[in-house]
Amino acid sequence: MNGAEALLLTLLNNDVTMCFANPGTSEMQFVAALDRHPGMRGVLCLFEGVATGAADGYARMTGHPAATLLHLGPGLANGLANLHNARRAGTPVVNIVGDYAGSHKPLDSPLESDIDAAAATVSSWVRRPSEPADVGPDAAAAVAAALDAGVPGDTDRSRTGTSGAVSTLIVPADLSWSQGGRPAKRVTRRSLRSVPDHDVDSIAALITGPETTALLIDGAGLGEDGLHAAARVHKATGTQFFCPTWPARLRRGAGVPEVQPLNYRSEGVHQQLEGVQHLVLVGAREPVASFAYPGRPSTLTPPSTTVHRLAPEAGFDIVGALTRLADMVAPGGAASLPDPLATPRITDEPLRTGNWAQVIGALLPREAIVVDESITEGMNTLSAATAYAPAHDVLGLKGLAIGQGLPVSVGAALACPDRPVVCLQADGSALYTISALWTQAREELNVTTVILNNRSYAILRAELDRVGAGRTGQAAESLLDLGRPDIDFTAIATGLGVAASRARTTAELAEQFAGAQRAPGPHLIEAVLQPA
Amino acid sequence: MNGAEALLLTLLNNDVTMCFANPGTSEMQFVAALDRHPGMRGVLCLFEGVATGAADGYARMTGHPAATLLHLGPGLANGLANLHNARRAGTPVVNIVGDYAGSHKPLDSPLESDIDAAAATVSSWVRRPSEPADVGPDAAAAVAAALDAGVPGDTDRSRTGTSGAVSTLIVPADLSWSQGGRPAKRVTRRSLRSVPDHDVDSIAALITGPETTALLIDGAGLGEDGLHAAARVHKATGTQFFCPTWPARLRRGAGVPEVQPLNYRSEGVHQQLEGVQHLVLVGAREPVASFAYPGRPSTLTPPSTTVHRLAPEAGFDIVGALTRLADMVAPGGAASLPDPLATPRITDEPLRTGNWAQVIGALLPREAIVVDESITEGMNTLSAATAYAPAHDVLGLKGLAIGQGLPVSVGAALACPDRPVVCLQADGSALYTISALWTQAREELNVTTVILNNRSYAILRAELDRVGAGRTGQAAESLLDLGRPDIDFTAIATGLGVAASRARTTAELAEQFAGAQRAPGPHLIEAVLQPA
Repeated sequence: MNGAEALLLTLLNNDVTMCFANPGTSEMQFVAALDRHPGMRGVLCLFEGVATGAADGYARMTGHPAATLLHLGPGLANGLANLHNARRAGTPVVNIVGDYAGSHKPLDSPLESDIDAAAATVSSWVRRPSEPADVGPDAAAAVAAALDAGVPGDTDRSRTGTSGAVSTLIVPADLSWSQGGRPAKRVTRRSLRSVPDHDVDSIAALITGPETTALLIDGAGLGEDGLHAAARVHKATGTQFFCPTWPARLRRGAGVPEVQPLNYRSEGVHQQLEGVQHLVLVGAREPVASFAYPGRPSTLTPPSTTVHRLAPEAGFDIVGALTRLADMVAPGGAASLPDPLATPRITDEPLRTGNWAQVIGALLPREAIVVDESITEGMNTLSAATAYAPAHDVLGLKGLAIGQGLPVSVGAALACPDRPVVCLQADGSALYTISALWTQAREELNVTTVILNNRSYAILRAELDRVGAGRTGQAAESLLDLGRPDIDFTAIATGLGVAASRARTTAELAEQFAGAQRAPGPHLIEAVLQPA
Repeated sequence: MNGAEALLLTLLNNDVTMCFANPGTSEMQFVAALDRHPGMRGVLCLFEGVATGAADGYARMTGHPAATLLHLGPGLANGLANLHNARRAGTPVVNIVGDYAGSHKPLDSPLESDIDAAAATVSSWVRRPSEPADVGPDAAAAVAAALDAGVPGDTDRSRTGTSGAVSTLIVPADLSWSQGGRPAKRVTRRSLRSVPDHDVDSIAALITGPETTALLIDGAGLGEDGLHAAARVHKATGTQFFCPTWPARLRRGAGVPEVQPLNYRSEGVHQQLEGVQHLVLVGAREPVASFAYPGRPSTLTPPSTTVHRLAPEAGFDIVGALTRLADMVAPGGAASLPDPLATPRITDEPLRTGNWAQVIGALLPREAIVVDESITEGMNTLSAATAYAPAHDVLGLKGLAIGQGLPVSVGAALACPDRPVVCLQADGSALYTISALWTQAREELNVTTVILNNRSYAILRAELDRVGAGRTGQAAESLLDLGRPDIDFTAIATGLGVAASRARTTAELAEQFAGAQRAPGPHLIEAVLQPA
């Protein structure tokens, strides 16, 4: 068999059965192999950023990687921003990039570029096999590298508390077409290590001691088990528990203890952590500001707060440790859940910042996957509005590279075909990867996209002020304003094969959102927001 | 003044007056400075690939760089593919990327990534100033690096025959907001060196000798002066002259001697060069195949052909050398131009491969700028159909990274507001950077985009066969087919503020194309092509 077949069979042996592809000439052997060896679902994306974002969304929901299939350096380049997000989210991704045949590379032909260097900016592992027999084993190593990140020896501190990473396999075309390939077997996933007793003991002593302590939880700790354990600790000791502003994946809603996200702004975090003498990181990194501003600190922990870690480094079972901690400080106790608030009541009024989130909170279907790239529009509203909605998962913009929302929705919907996906997407970043809508249509995915159209890069208006840039005039304003002309997202969605409607009032949004949940396939609702 | 102002004033001192921007927080000081120091036109692009492609198109037409303004590593990543194209085209681009403040970088906050490594994959020059006083001088050095590529000492052989390159200036946010900036003066552009007499003499001897010689011209040689000189040589000696398949910029049409583009396929090139004993490179690189295929050579020059160079290395005045060559072998002779063929006659028939190009050839306005990303649809048809149209410039996909057409059109239209721009855009790559249409609308650019909608990645169907991948079934086919659902480009264009129509016959295309030329502002025509 040829190298491409060995690659495909190795992926299948490792239960990698989904491939988000934008192939080119150098990937044609892999494409052809899909017909000879069924089991891999090839999903065409019309831009590489859609493929990489979809792979991120898929693995956030399954915990197991999808493959991408990208064409040479420029194809990889187009997918880098969403691989950056996957890296920051700690998502396992097997990123496959085709390259020129070995004999062809020295000719420096038009698409030649430094694939290895570009891949290294987002990958914890980069390899290019050197002969056809290597392709299978290297593909297995890529799966292992994607899954086993965060295990001992991993030095990428951005992934603390998560267990996935981007691994990039660069496959020269001649290895794909040459015979001599041999598929590799399934790799064994290394298990997480148990947090040592003395570490759990010392955190328990801290929490039950006289000083004020808080937990900052991330990664696997934000699932149902971790949050119930944290809530038990809270009930017994009063210890507050927080999560990052936009975690990679967070369980929320009815029956799930609510964790407070840290504020996006440093002054907000300083308020949240005021009086906290000890901050315990549970699979989380020490919080830092998204940006530096003149005269403001970049670290968010108050100077008087001491930082501790429940696990000494990455690769530990933090959910197990949290549960043991709860068993120590609250033996036998169950988490106390607040009484559900009444479902938000929807009165008919023009849509604006805030009230759109009430509609989503009132109508969110059971077990929804909420993909949150609402940015400014959701920042201080979405969390409260959906806290008592039916239980759901939220996938957030952890890496802050915009253009993730629509592609992550594609991957999440393919990962969980029986769950509704709700994509809350800011207008400013929607166009980055808009062709994800076409893939939603082709694959008939149950995704309801709500475009939060405030017709500006709203976050930049605030930032302009915060960096001390002073009063703006027409020239600066033209770079923040997304009007002139207004973008009609319903027309764009229709052009890409997705049914679309426009809502200007809360009642219209409610009616259209409920209708989208009833009808199969993708829908887009453009929520036109009035200035607050 | 702060560093951002020093940057802006240095650019203005160097006649860099156009900035294609997708800014973020770290670039807000520069944005604010635009109001305090007029002279720079900030053009908002809704995706970084639009900004970098527009900068490429602008400088291809002006010969002078525009600036970009990109946000951190992910913003740069999104712009890389079109910077790759600019690099391959030899276009000068001053690529400005904001970065975190120096004190903030060690915190590894969410958007942190290796900007320098990513920039190096497309740039001949990368620098980050280390204090506010450096920003101005480093910006001047960036302009010099963008303009002076190809001068002696430049070792990037991809730019032979051109004089531009991508230079990347990485500006930490704290240098932008801190005082101590000082603008730098205008840099002196180094002039091209004259090709030594003995080199011109030896080529003249070759051409006038008994053996068959051909010229392969690229870069500045493809302007009107170079082509007239080549035509004089041809008239006097019978020497054929060729250019690459898709040059960065080529002068064509009535009154311009026609140069034959090399075929995209190696077997076509072998036919074109059959019997050529000496191939003289005039600002061109030795031709290589775009891709390797099993059993086919990657080099295109026949084994029996000896390769020569008119200029010994990059940085020489090849137009002057070509003219001197013509003066030697054809003293006083004028180029002989073939009689113009009749304008193609348009009969009303369904649009398909080939006949759409006849319509463009018949109706192309005077001094049009034709941005050619027609790929498969234009490969063997466009050149002949437009050879006798009014004189025009063609901007081609030299770097082969798709998604260049719409952004390059934006830049070309801003560079030459009095010239009509015609963008011939394949459907498969149109969605990569579709939001360029919005910038066309906002800036009211006279661009007519013709989407050549064959509803497939047509080039990949051919490639699948050429790489020996064998018969394809449904799985492979689904990755090449752009139908299911069909994309409605008129709806998408309307959503982005561009007037749009659909043509299914040659008569409809002719009517709509002529109408678009008469009305100001951008238009999009979706040409729905029947299978050939």
